[in-house]
Amino acid sequence: MPTLPRAITKLIESFERLPGIGPRTAARLTFYLLHVPQEQLDSFAQAVGNLKKNTMRCAICVNISESNPCSFCGDTQRNQQIVCVVEQPLDILAMERSGAYGGVYHVLHGAISPLNNIGPDDIFIPQLLKRLASSTIEEIILATNPTMEGEATAMYIKDMIQRDGSKVKLTRLAHGLPVGADIEFADGITLSRALEGRREY
Amino acid sequence: MPTLPRAITKLIESFERLPGIGPRTAARLTFYLLHVPQEQLDSFAQAVGNLKKNTMRCAICVNISESNPCSFCGDTQRNQQIVCVVEQPLDILAMERSGAYGGVYHVLHGAISPLNNIGPDDIFIPQLLKRLASSTIEEIILATNPTMEGEATAMYIKDMIQRDGSKVKLTRLAHGLPVGADIEFADGITLSRALEGRREY
Repeated sequence: MPTLPRAITKLIESFERLPGIGPRTAARLTFYLLHVPQEQLDSFAQAVGNLKKNTMRCAICVNISESNPCSFCGDTQRNQQIVCVVEQPLDILAMERSGAYGGVYHVLHGAISPLNNIGPDDIFIPQLLKRLASSTIEEIILATNPTMEGEATAMYIKDMIQRDGSKVKLTRLAHGLPVGADIEFADGITLSRALEGRREY
Repeated sequence: MPTLPRAITKLIESFERLPGIGPRTAARLTFYLLHVPQEQLDSFAQAVGNLKKNTMRCAICVNISESNPCSFCGDTQRNQQIVCVVEQPLDILAMERSGAYGGVYHVLHGAISPLNNIGPDDIFIPQLLKRLASSTIEEIILATNPTMEGEATAMYIKDMIQRDGSKVKLTRLAHGLPVGADIEFADGITLSRALEGRREY
């Protein structure tokens, strides 16, 4: 696009680097921002530039936070003996929204995925094992996603912990029908897991 | 989301203000940027902040440009007697990509849309009429979109120009089948316009 001003192509290129944003969306967003007041642009620019400057990783749970240790690991009201292992910081938000969990977390920042060249040491599994060895943890909830990568990651962590001879209780979130779902449209694997896990009523 | 660091919620909020980006996409983009090098964040922030500082509107055609007059209006190689009226700066890029046009442009920055409270004076129609009165223009191509708003805008401009008693030639882009299309799937209105506009072969 030779006829566009440099300031516009620069922003289009920046947007294009984001996941899920193609050249057309990038151009649309850029031309939208041309009609926005300069103060809004400045606050957007500041938010981008300061994103990593004002955040850090908690040395205990590797969650993105403003303090070290993070608000979960530093909270004496929470049960520090139960650790919920999740793939991403956003998974913590989902858990917290449920209001059903009062323990602490460990963020892997990914899942084992040989196709994408992500091995066990590329995500924060060694940190989890070290944490397990150095503190009194009673239960580890493996809350990785119920996908191929998530299952493989949970399986790997289980193997590593049991190989170390640890007696910690290992659990995994239950599979079954989502609340509000329709049995008619449930897929076969989910339904067979729901049957396996059926409970006395 | 009370447990997220302030730097993260600020960027999520900034992304959410963009058209077509909801809370989930905003969070996904923000957490993606957490894994990006600081230099890339800085260049993104700079591109946002400088977007409007390094661009201006051409005083003749109202196109967004780096200079005034813009590279089209200042180009003596181009035919300054033919003006193509478009809704958005991106429409100019599409015209230029076609390689079939050698005249200049006029950007309305919108179309008349009573439902959205956009009247003729909210877009750059008065500037077009003034430009027509003060220079020797032979032809005006009304290249607004073939939508309700675009057609209404073209109609309004035509009325205004003819009321002024101007003898300028007014044209509109042809309707018909897109090249490479399948007649089987063409809609009725397009097909009837293609029939109306049929040419000797």
